[in-house]
Amino acid sequence: GHCDTAPPDVLDRVRTLLQLCADRYYISPGESNSELFRRGWSCSYGPLGVELKRNLLQQWWHSVTGSRAWVFGVNTLSSSPVRAAGGARVVQSEPFQQILDQSELSREQLIQKLNRLLLSSPSVRTSLLQGALEQFVPSLEMVNKKLPFGLAESGPCFQPSDGCSAEVTQTSLVWFCSPRSSSQWLDHWARHRLKWWRKFALSPSDFSSAEVPENELEEKTSRGVKILYKFPWGLESLETLWCRGDAELLQVHKGIRSKLQTRDGRKSVPHVVSVSGNMDRGAMAYLSNSLQELRREDGRKRLQQRKVLKLHPVLAPVKVALDVGKGATVEMRQICEGLLQEFLEAKISAWPGYLEAVPTSLELLNAKYDEMGVLFTVVIGEKTLESGLLQVRSRDTTIRETMHISEIRNFLSKYVSAADKL
Amino acid sequence: GHCDTAPPDVLDRVRTLLQLCADRYYISPGESNSELFRRGWSCSYGPLGVELKRNLLQQWWHSVTGSRAWVFGVNTLSSSPVRAAGGARVVQSEPFQQILDQSELSREQLIQKLNRLLLSSPSVRTSLLQGALEQFVPSLEMVNKKLPFGLAESGPCFQPSDGCSAEVTQTSLVWFCSPRSSSQWLDHWARHRLKWWRKFALSPSDFSSAEVPENELEEKTSRGVKILYKFPWGLESLETLWCRGDAELLQVHKGIRSKLQTRDGRKSVPHVVSVSGNMDRGAMAYLSNSLQELRREDGRKRLQQRKVLKLHPVLAPVKVALDVGKGATVEMRQICEGLLQEFLEAKISAWPGYLEAVPTSLELLNAKYDEMGVLFTVVIGEKTLESGLLQVRSRDTTIRETMHISEIRNFLSKYVSAADKL
Repeated sequence: GHCDTAPPDVLDRVRTLLQLCADRYYISPGESNSELFRRGWSCSYGPLGVELKRNLLQQWWHSVTGSRAWVFGVNTLSSSPVRAAGGARVVQSEPFQQILDQSELSREQLIQKLNRLLLSSPSVRTSLLQGALEQFVPSLEMVNKKLPFGLAESGPCFQPSDGCSAEVTQTSLVWFCSPRSSSQWLDHWARHRLKWWRKFALSPSDFSSAEVPENELEEKTSRGVKILYKFPWGLESLETLWCRGDAELLQVHKGIRSKLQTRDGRKSVPHVVSVSGNMDRGAMAYLSNSLQELRREDGRKRLQQRKVLKLHPVLAPVKVALDVGKGATVEMRQICEGLLQEFLEAKISAWPGYLEAVPTSLELLNAKYDEMGVLFTVVIGEKTLESGLLQVRSRDTTIRETMHISEIRNFLSKYVSAADKL
Repeated sequence: GHCDTAPPDVLDRVRTLLQLCADRYYISPGESNSELFRRGWSCSYGPLGVELKRNLLQQWWHSVTGSRAWVFGVNTLSSSPVRAAGGARVVQSEPFQQILDQSELSREQLIQKLNRLLLSSPSVRTSLLQGALEQFVPSLEMVNKKLPFGLAESGPCFQPSDGCSAEVTQTSLVWFCSPRSSSQWLDHWARHRLKWWRKFALSPSDFSSAEVPENELEEKTSRGVKILYKFPWGLESLETLWCRGDAELLQVHKGIRSKLQTRDGRKSVPHVVSVSGNMDRGAMAYLSNSLQELRREDGRKRLQQRKVLKLHPVLAPVKVALDVGKGATVEMRQICEGLLQEFLEAKISAWPGYLEAVPTSLELLNAKYDEMGVLFTVVIGEKTLESGLLQVRSRDTTIRETMHISEIRNFLSKYVSAADKL
């Protein structure tokens, strides 16, 4: 693994992050989940991790499909019967067993039958490229045979690894353009993607882009750019852009150039620029980027360590936690329930801390919500019953503000949508 | 198939619907698609189908996770190494071939090695239930060992069929509650789900619910309710709810009752109510439900047939189409581009019809957008250049309104969010 030769403070930093992710419901507890997550693979996420990934994928979708006129969503199958030999295949156990159980078959017949079963089993996809290339022809009709246009998709893919296959949530934009413009489009999308990643970062400079050196270019590609994130253990690529030429498009459509030609008067076949990302690693990058460890002395001169997950407001899985102070009464809980309902209806993701009912100090509560990356904490107390006033604490400023109960929903809605527009 | 014995008008209706879906970018053209689609399986969707399914899944997610305090999202792997024998498995071709190529192996050794490879290959999931049951223990910690709570997930599953496996986009809510309350919770969720399906329907009465007769109960279930849709060819189930008892939960956690016990003072293990839906069939149900075929005579007494896809405003994939009248000028196109940018920024899904540039009559244009289910069509003409006024046509009323260009974005935003709140 990456960490084995890393210095101890790097190991510490990674361990702290993974422990926090498991403790605070980002990933399900368990060694293997941490390992998968660190390698940029899909794992069992906890509810906060699910929401973070959903938010990230939603932002990606809007940024790509909403960036230009002709970017369409596609949705292809994750396994498909018409792919070439090799790769991973979805094999049904029953027919497989039936062949093994046929004792009258010779060794050769057995091998022949098994080979045939394997080849007729659907392949699982390793990327979203193939599906988009297949969708090129119907899409070309839709845009009245004019370039450029793009096809966007996100979904699980399977990466072969150590004889096993790892699941990864990929995003893909496949951009079709004229041959002479493809290099410019690669630059356009590389800038677009880097800007997007940095938009949600606490330290934008940890995200960078780099041209792929000529000797590392993949087969059939003429240029490549990687969007990189500086993890504690080193650089990893989050998104990769390639100028792919027309070879794969021709291959998928069996070389029938006439099907692929556009209205621009030339006889050329479009070139393909692919932009594919790993959103499991993307979620990990933002978690790593947003974890702040602050040290300070408390009143008794003891060193206190405060960990805060400063996720961007649009990515933060929980926007507001609802809690009650000490000596909570039935009325206070009812106010919490009413507020929760209001938040849910306004689609503000809220954490019903008042239901946990383990009395704890305000300090421990704040520490917990900071580690969860909760933007605001609302505490209902005696005062709320008397005057309708409540305390709202901000994760980022740690300042407590007093607000009237009727204002809180609007305040949160405006805060989140303002952050989205920055 | 279902349709083989159906009367001709049913076949007609189904054919019309599927043709429209293929022509208007809901599904990719191709014969096999229609069969998959009719059987409620995932197919290659066109961009409008992708957006419809996205909207549907998003609504489902909000309605389930936003309905109560303790419903959490989970995200489990679509293939997992720790499941029992049988089912479909993701097998890597290379190690498989390597075993077949080992000529020194005897027939028995060959079979043994292949069996071992199959068993060590990850299983693909056929439902989301197993994943949620596995997440029960960490989730129980999160809610401080109190019931009830639920785990929600959506994603692709593989249904075995004819020795092959079909992909289906499933939704799942797994609800954990006390044994004595499970039947009441089943009723609660059945009402909740039926109300949700009807909310977006043009003819709500085509959606119904029915108790599963006792002799049709699945193994380990004590009650079941199905949410049904009346397709032209008959009833099909969109969502199924089961009272599952505690047997499967115990099985997943190897019978260790102490891990599963809650804080309610009793020694009982929670019961499980499962709610699982097929959103490929769901999308199809809404397409079928919203297709209106209207006949009327035109000015020359010819019978005209108008097809309108009256999808609910929150489900409709395209909220507004932007087009130019005859004799379009560069300035008119620039206005379209400006408006498109405004719509994309406001996350209003817009169709840039002005880019298609094939001159067509307004009548044909309206017919096309009606079949696409586009809510509003905005036409930029001479008048817009002069006075800033444009024509806005509503799909549902067919009425053309004149509006100032500065009002249109707000008008659309308000229309869609008002429809969402109904």
